[in-house]
Amino acid sequence: MPKTVVLVYSGGLDTSVAIPMMREDYGFDRIVTVTVDVGQPAEDVKSAEDRARAMGTEHYTADAKKEFVEEYCWPAVKANGDYQGYPLSTAIARPLIGLKAVEIAKKVGADAFCHGCTGKGNDQFRIEYVMRALLPETPIIAPMREHNYTRTEEIEYARVKNIPISVSADKIWSIDENLWGRSIEGGHLEEPNYAPPEEIFQWIKGIDAANAAPQILTIGFENGVPISLDGTALDGLSLVTQLNKIAGDNGVGRVDIMEDRLLGLKCRENYECPASTVLIKAHAALEALVATAAERKFKLMVDQQWGELAYYGLWFDPLKDDLEAFIGKIQERVTGTVTLRLFKGSCVVTGRASEWALYSEDLASFDSKTFDQRLSVGNVQTHGMQSRMYWALKEKMGK
Amino acid sequence: MPKTVVLVYSGGLDTSVAIPMMREDYGFDRIVTVTVDVGQPAEDVKSAEDRARAMGTEHYTADAKKEFVEEYCWPAVKANGDYQGYPLSTAIARPLIGLKAVEIAKKVGADAFCHGCTGKGNDQFRIEYVMRALLPETPIIAPMREHNYTRTEEIEYARVKNIPISVSADKIWSIDENLWGRSIEGGHLEEPNYAPPEEIFQWIKGIDAANAAPQILTIGFENGVPISLDGTALDGLSLVTQLNKIAGDNGVGRVDIMEDRLLGLKCRENYECPASTVLIKAHAALEALVATAAERKFKLMVDQQWGELAYYGLWFDPLKDDLEAFIGKIQERVTGTVTLRLFKGSCVVTGRASEWALYSEDLASFDSKTFDQRLSVGNVQTHGMQSRMYWALKEKMGK
Amino acid sequence: MPKTVVLVYSGGLDTSVAIPMMREDYGFDRIVTVTVDVGQPAEDVKSAEDRARAMGTEHYTADAKKEFVEEYCWPAVKANGDYQGYPLSTAIARPLIGLKAVEIAKKVGADAFCHGCTGKGNDQFRIEYVMRALLPETPIIAPMREHNYTRTEEIEYARVKNIPISVSADKIWSIDENLWGRSIEGGHLEEPNYAPPEEIFQWIKGIDAANAAPQILTIGFENGVPISLDGTALDGLSLVTQLNKIAGDNGVGRVDIMEDRLLGLKCRENYECPASTVLIKAHAALEALVATAAERKFKLMVDQQWGELAYYGLWFDPLKDDLEAFIGKIQERVTGTVTLRLFKGSCVVTGRASEWALYSEDLASFDSKTFDQRLSVGNVQTHGMQSRMYWALKEKMGK
Amino acid sequence: MPKTVVLVYSGGLDTSVAIPMMREDYGFDRIVTVTVDVGQPAEDVKSAEDRARAMGTEHYTADAKKEFVEEYCWPAVKANGDYQGYPLSTAIARPLIGLKAVEIAKKVGADAFCHGCTGKGNDQFRIEYVMRALLPETPIIAPMREHNYTRTEEIEYARVKNIPISVSADKIWSIDENLWGRSIEGGHLEEPNYAPPEEIFQWIKGIDAANAAPQILTIGFENGVPISLDGTALDGLSLVTQLNKIAGDNGVGRVDIMEDRLLGLKCRENYECPASTVLIKAHAALEALVATAAERKFKLMVDQQWGELAYYGLWFDPLKDDLEAFIGKIQERVTGTVTLRLFKGSCVVTGRASEWALYSEDLASFDSKTFDQRLSVGNVQTHGMQSRMYWALKEKMGK
Repeated sequence: MPKTVVLVYSGGLDTSVAIPMMREDYGFDRIVTVTVDVGQPAEDVKSAEDRARAMGTEHYTADAKKEFVEEYCWPAVKANGDYQGYPLSTAIARPLIGLKAVEIAKKVGADAFCHGCTGKGNDQFRIEYVMRALLPETPIIAPMREHNYTRTEEIEYARVKNIPISVSADKIWSIDENLWGRSIEGGHLEEPNYAPPEEIFQWIKGIDAANAAPQILTIGFENGVPISLDGTALDGLSLVTQLNKIAGDNGVGRVDIMEDRLLGLKCRENYECPASTVLIKAHAALEALVATAAERKFKLMVDQQWGELAYYGLWFDPLKDDLEAFIGKIQERVTGTVTLRLFKGSCVVTGRASEWALYSEDLASFDSKTFDQRLSVGNVQTHGMQSRMYWALKEKMGK
Repeated sequence: MPKTVVLVYSGGLDTSVAIPMMREDYGFDRIVTVTVDVGQPAEDVKSAEDRARAMGTEHYTADAKKEFVEEYCWPAVKANGDYQGYPLSTAIARPLIGLKAVEIAKKVGADAFCHGCTGKGNDQFRIEYVMRALLPETPIIAPMREHNYTRTEEIEYARVKNIPISVSADKIWSIDENLWGRSIEGGHLEEPNYAPPEEIFQWIKGIDAANAAPQILTIGFENGVPISLDGTALDGLSLVTQLNKIAGDNGVGRVDIMEDRLLGLKCRENYECPASTVLIKAHAALEALVATAAERKFKLMVDQQWGELAYYGLWFDPLKDDLEAFIGKIQERVTGTVTLRLFKGSCVVTGRASEWALYSEDLASFDSKTFDQRLSVGNVQTHGMQSRMYWALKEKMGK
Repeated sequence: MPKTVVLVYSGGLDTSVAIPMMREDYGFDRIVTVTVDVGQPAEDVKSAEDRARAMGTEHYTADAKKEFVEEYCWPAVKANGDYQGYPLSTAIARPLIGLKAVEIAKKVGADAFCHGCTGKGNDQFRIEYVMRALLPETPIIAPMREHNYTRTEEIEYARVKNIPISVSADKIWSIDENLWGRSIEGGHLEEPNYAPPEEIFQWIKGIDAANAAPQILTIGFENGVPISLDGTALDGLSLVTQLNKIAGDNGVGRVDIMEDRLLGLKCRENYECPASTVLIKAHAALEALVATAAERKFKLMVDQQWGELAYYGLWFDPLKDDLEAFIGKIQERVTGTVTLRLFKGSCVVTGRASEWALYSEDLASFDSKTFDQRLSVGNVQTHGMQSRMYWALKEKMGK
Repeated sequence: MPKTVVLVYSGGLDTSVAIPMMREDYGFDRIVTVTVDVGQPAEDVKSAEDRARAMGTEHYTADAKKEFVEEYCWPAVKANGDYQGYPLSTAIARPLIGLKAVEIAKKVGADAFCHGCTGKGNDQFRIEYVMRALLPETPIIAPMREHNYTRTEEIEYARVKNIPISVSADKIWSIDENLWGRSIEGGHLEEPNYAPPEEIFQWIKGIDAANAAPQILTIGFENGVPISLDGTALDGLSLVTQLNKIAGDNGVGRVDIMEDRLLGLKCRENYECPASTVLIKAHAALEALVATAAERKFKLMVDQQWGELAYYGLWFDPLKDDLEAFIGKIQERVTGTVTLRLFKGSCVVTGRASEWALYSEDLASFDSKTFDQRLSVGNVQTHGMQSRMYWALKEKMGK
C-alpha cells in the first residue's frame, strides 16, 4: 500500500518545497497535489499543474469558481462581509480549498494532508479547521511551520533541491488572488506608516490612470443576491468578473488597513477588492431601504460576528449557520436595484428601489398632512424621560 | 411683569412666523430671540439679527463656534460619531442651541420657550430634551407643530403678516449648516431613487471640478483630539475650518443615505461633511493602530450606541457619559499622526504612526524568528474545537 | 347599517365602563365584546360573558389556550424569554388578544376597535400595534386614555351608570392572569422599598407553606420545545398547567423586580411565574450543553433583543422573525432531558443529557491523555498578546 | 550566583512535585516558594508553609485577603461579575496570585517562574498572562504541562520522591477556595447528568439542614461597593467573611453549571459562592433602581464582556480598563440599600432604596394626573411604525 499525502498546492514556493520534503523527510511515496481554481490568474493554475507534473506528483485541478461565487461570495454579500475594513477575499476562499482537499483525500484514500502555510498567519487556522471538521482522523502536516523556516532559508532549500520555481530572494511581495480580491503582503508593506507604492496594484488603476468619465451602474438583487448588471441578467461568475474589470478601471476597491490577525499580530494590509467593494456597498444600500431601523441596528452586530467567523475560517461553524438564518430572513426582502456612480476611485450610491422599500413618499414629505404633527407632542415629552429624571435628581442633590 | 418667551431663532421661515404668533396668539409681550452661531454662514447670522430687530424682538447672538468644536465635534471624533453613515452634523448642534437658549432663558427670566421645529422631524426631540432636562418647569411652545401647517400654509401666513423673508413657495431645498456639515433636504431629494442634482452641493466640489492634483495631509492627534495639520498646531476651530475647505476642494465628504428618523420615517438624506468625514476616518485609522483587537470590536458597539444617542439628541443622557468614560479611556493612547491622500472625491489613509502602536515590526515580518511558528500548533489544533465536536456528532448521528 | 365596535373585554372595571361610553358618547349601536381565554381563571371568563350579556352586547369568547401555549409560550421558551427578570407573561398574551379581536372584527365587519387600556401602561402599545398592523384602516378608541380618568373617577362613573361590577375603591391590587404567569400591581406594591405582603400571592406558596419534601422533575425537550414530564409525553397545555401546580406547591417562581416600562416609567413589579420560570431555566440549561461557547455568548444578545420586542408587544415585527430564525437554528439541537430539584422556593438543575451534548468525557477528564497538554503552550504564550504589548509600551514610556 | 526560581506554591500535589523537579530536572539551586493567602482555609496556608520548609525552600506567604476583596472582588461586584452563571471566584484570584509572584520575583531576582497548572485548564492562561505582562523577560516553567502527567502518574512520582503530601489516588475531588467562592471538580462531577452528592459541599448547607427561620439582611452600598450589613459599617474583608457564613447557613450560593473553558472544553462545574451570590444579586437590584433602561440594557453587554475577560484571566487588559471606566461612571449613583430575605436556599430582594432612584411615586401611581395619559396617543400611534409599513407591503404584494 502506498503511503499517500494530499498536498494543497498553489505552485508557489511554500508548497513546492513541500514536495521533496514529503518524499524525503516524511516517507510518503504517493504525493497527490490539489490546486483549487478560485479565480486566481489562469497562468498560475497552469503553471501549478506543470510544476506538479514536473515534480512527479499525481495532480488534480478543481475548478471551483462557480461554487466559490455562489456558495462563498454570495453569503459574504448578504452579510456585508467585512473584517476591520477587509472584504475577506482570501479568508473565504480557504475553507473551499480545504473542502476540495477533503473531497480528493476521500477519493484517493489519503493517509495525511499537507499544506504550505507558515505558523504565523491565518491560513493554517482556516485550512486545518475544515480538514479536522470533515476528516478528523487524518493527520495534517505543515512543514513550513514545523521547520520554522524564514523565507530566506526556504529559498535556499528550494535551490538545493532544484525546485523549478522563479521566486528569488528579492521578490518582496507575497500575493494571493481570487475572484473576491487580491492581497499584497511583504516587505515594507507591513509597516503602518509606509505609503504603498503604485506598483503593487495590478487590478485597480490609480486615480490618475482611471477612466476619464464616470460610469453609472445599476445592479439588480434578488433575495440579497446580485443577479443583473444594467438590466442584463448574469450568472454570478460573469457578474463578478465583469465588475472586477469595471470597478478596477474606475479605480474603485483598494483597501489599506491595520488588521488584527488570529494570533494577535497587528499588521498593515493592502488589498484590491473591486467587485466585492461595489457589491457590498450596493447590497448594504438596498438593505438600508427595506430593513427596519431596529433590523439595521441589530444586523450590524450579526454582520460583524459573521465577518469575524469568516476571517477566522470557521466557515462550517454552527454559529455561522445561526447567523445566516437571521441574515437569510432579512434577505427575503432584499430584492430591487441599486444605482451607483463609479468615478476616479469613488463609488457612490445614487439611487435604490425596491417593492419592499419601507418608504412612504406621503409620510416623508414636508408638504403633507398624512401624519398629524400634533400627535408627536407625546413622543417628544416622553423622549429621554429617565434622563430628565436624572437631571432633576442631580439638581435636588446639588450635584 | 412682562410675559417673556425665549425663541430659538434662525432667521428662516419657521422661526420668523413664530414671532407674530407669540405676540398675537400666545400673548407674550416680550419676545427674546436667540441665534446660536455654530458656524452657519456669517450672513445668515447677520440677517437673523437684522430680521429679529426689524420685527422688534430683544435679540441675542451667541457665538458658540469654539464651544461647538471642542465640546461637541471633538467627542464626536472620539466616538467616530456616525448614525447610519451620517456624521451627525445637525444632530450634535441642536443640544448646544438648546443649551444656549436655556442660559438666556435663565438670564432673562423666561416664562416659556418657543422653537420652530415641525412635528415630523428629529429636531423637536433634540431641542426640547435639553430644555426639559435643564429647565423642567418652563413650558415649551412649538407653533409649527401645533398648527400642523404645511410649508405652503406657512408661506401664506408669512405673506399675510408681512414677514420680511425671502422664502418663496418654489424654494425647494431646506438647508441646515454648521461647522460639522451641511444638510440639504426637500423636494425630490427625499425619494430613494432620485440622483441628487449637482446644484444642491455648495461646500464640496464635484469630482470633475475638484482639484486636479492629489493633496497629502498629515493630521496630528492627542488623546483622540485633532491638534495639527501638516505639522502645524491649530486650535480646533481653525483646524475644522481649514479642513472643510481642503476636503471640499478635493471633492471629499458628500454623504447620500437612507436614514431612519426618530419617529420611524425612513428618508433619503444628502449631506456635505468635508472636515468631519476626514477627521473621523483619520481618527478611526489611528485607533486601529493602538487599540487591541478586542477593544476595536467592542468599541464598534460603543460607538454605534453613542451615535444613536447623539442622533436622538440625548446629549446629556447618563448613558452618554458612561460611553464617553469608556471611549475616553481608549483615547489616552490615541496620540500620533495619520497621513491621508485626498484626490477627486476619495480620501485614503496611507500611513499612521503612534508611540502606542500595537505593532511589532519584528513579530510581523515574514523573515523573523522572534515568533516560534511551531508554537502555533496548539492554537491551530484547538481552533474551532467545539465546532469540530459538532461535526463529529452530526457524523455519528448520520445527519 | 349598524355602527359596530369590537371591544376587547375582560369583564373588569376598565372595559365594562367602556360599554355605555361606546353607546352614549361614541354613537355605536352594535357593541361586540371579545373575551380571549389565555388561561385566566375560568370564573373570570364566565363572569365576563355574563356581564357582557347583562349589558346587552354581542359576545364572543375565544378559547386561545392551546394557541397561546404553542405559538406564544414555546417561542418564549426557545428565546429564554425575559425582560429585566420578567418572564413576559402578560406581555406575550396581549398580541394574541389583539389578534383574536382582529379576527372577530373582520368577521363582524367592525367600524372601530375599543380597548380599556390606560395611557400610562404597556398594554395600549401591545394591543394597538397588532390591530394597526393587521387592520390598519380600522380606528381604535381608548376611552380610559381619552378621559385621563383616575381609578376613583372610573369607579364613580361605573356607579352612576349602574355597571354590575364588584370593584370597590379599596380593592387595591390590579391582577392579570394567564397560563404563563400572574401579575399583581397597585397600591404600595409599586414602591421599590415595600416588601410585598404574603396575601398578594395566589399561585405560589410561601417557603414555609411549600411542600416539605423536594420534588425531582425531568423535563424532556425536542427542538427547544418541552414535550414531556418525568418521561410522560404531554401536550403543551397540560404540561404548563401541571407545572404551574407543581412549581407553585414548591414555592418556585415568584418574581420581584424594578421594571422599565415602555414610556420610561420605572416601576416595581411582582409576578407569579411558576411554569415559565421552571421551563426557561431547564431550557437554558439544555442549551448550555449543546451550544458552542460562541453561540451561547451571541444568543444572550439575541435573546435580550427578543425579550425587548416581546415586552414592547412587537410580536409581528420583522426583526422578531429574524431573531427567531437564528434561535430556531440552534433549537435543532436542543433535544434531550433536564432534571431539576424543586424545594422550598429553589429550583436547581441537577442534570442534563442530550445526543447533541458538546461534551467529551474523555477530553474533560483529569486522567486522560487524549488531549496532549503540551500543545497548549502556544495557546498560553499567545494569550493576551496585544495586552502584553500594551504593557511593554507602558513600561518603555515610563507610564 | 544561585539560579533562582519562584514557584507559585499551594501546598498541594501539583506544586509539591514541582520542587524536586526544579532542583533535579531544571537545575535550580534556589527554590523560592510563594503562597498567596486569598482566603483559603488557614490550615492550608499553614501546611503549605510547613511543607515548603520541610522540602527546603525559601518560603514567602503573602496575606492578600484585603487586597483581594477591595481590588478584585469589589470590581467584580460592580460588574455583576459572572461568566455563564459562575461568579468567577477562582478566576479573579489567579491574577492576584500571579501579581504577588511577580513582586517576589523582582525582590529575589528570579531567573524563572514555575507553576503547577496543567495544560488543560484555565489557570495556566491566567497566571502566565500576568507574569508575561509584568515581567516579560522571565521564562515560565510549567512542569505538569510539560510532562503531560495524569494524576495517577503524578502521585506515583510523589511517592518515589518521598514528598510529604496526603493526597491519595482515591481522593476524587479537586478543591480551590478563596473568599469569593469554592470550586469542586473531579470524578463524576464533570459529567453533565450526574447529580452532585451532598458531601462535596462544605460552605453551604443543604436546604434541609439550612436555618429554620428566614433571615432578613440589609446591605448598604456606596458607589457600587458594599459598605454595611444591617446598618453596621464593615470593612470589606469582614463583610465578605460574615456574609459567607450567613448565606451558607441559609443554603444560599450553590452553583451548578455547564462551563466552556478557555481551550474549548465544555465541563460541568460545581461552586459554592455564598457571599458573592448575595452581593451581586443585591448590587444588580440597586443598579436596576438607579440606572436608566438604556443603561441597564447596554451594561448587560459590558458586564458580559467584563466577565469573559475576568474568566480569561486578562485582568490587566486595556479593554478591562475601558469597561471599568464605563462601569465606574454608573457606580457614581449606585449608592443606597438593598434588603434581602435568605431562607432555605432562596435569596430574594424585597426592597431597594436610593437617593438616585429613577422612580417617581407620583408618575407611577395609577391614581395620579401628573402624567396626562392623552399624550401617549402619539407614542402609541408611532409604535412599530416601520413594522406596520412592512405588513402593509406584505398585504399589497399578497404575501
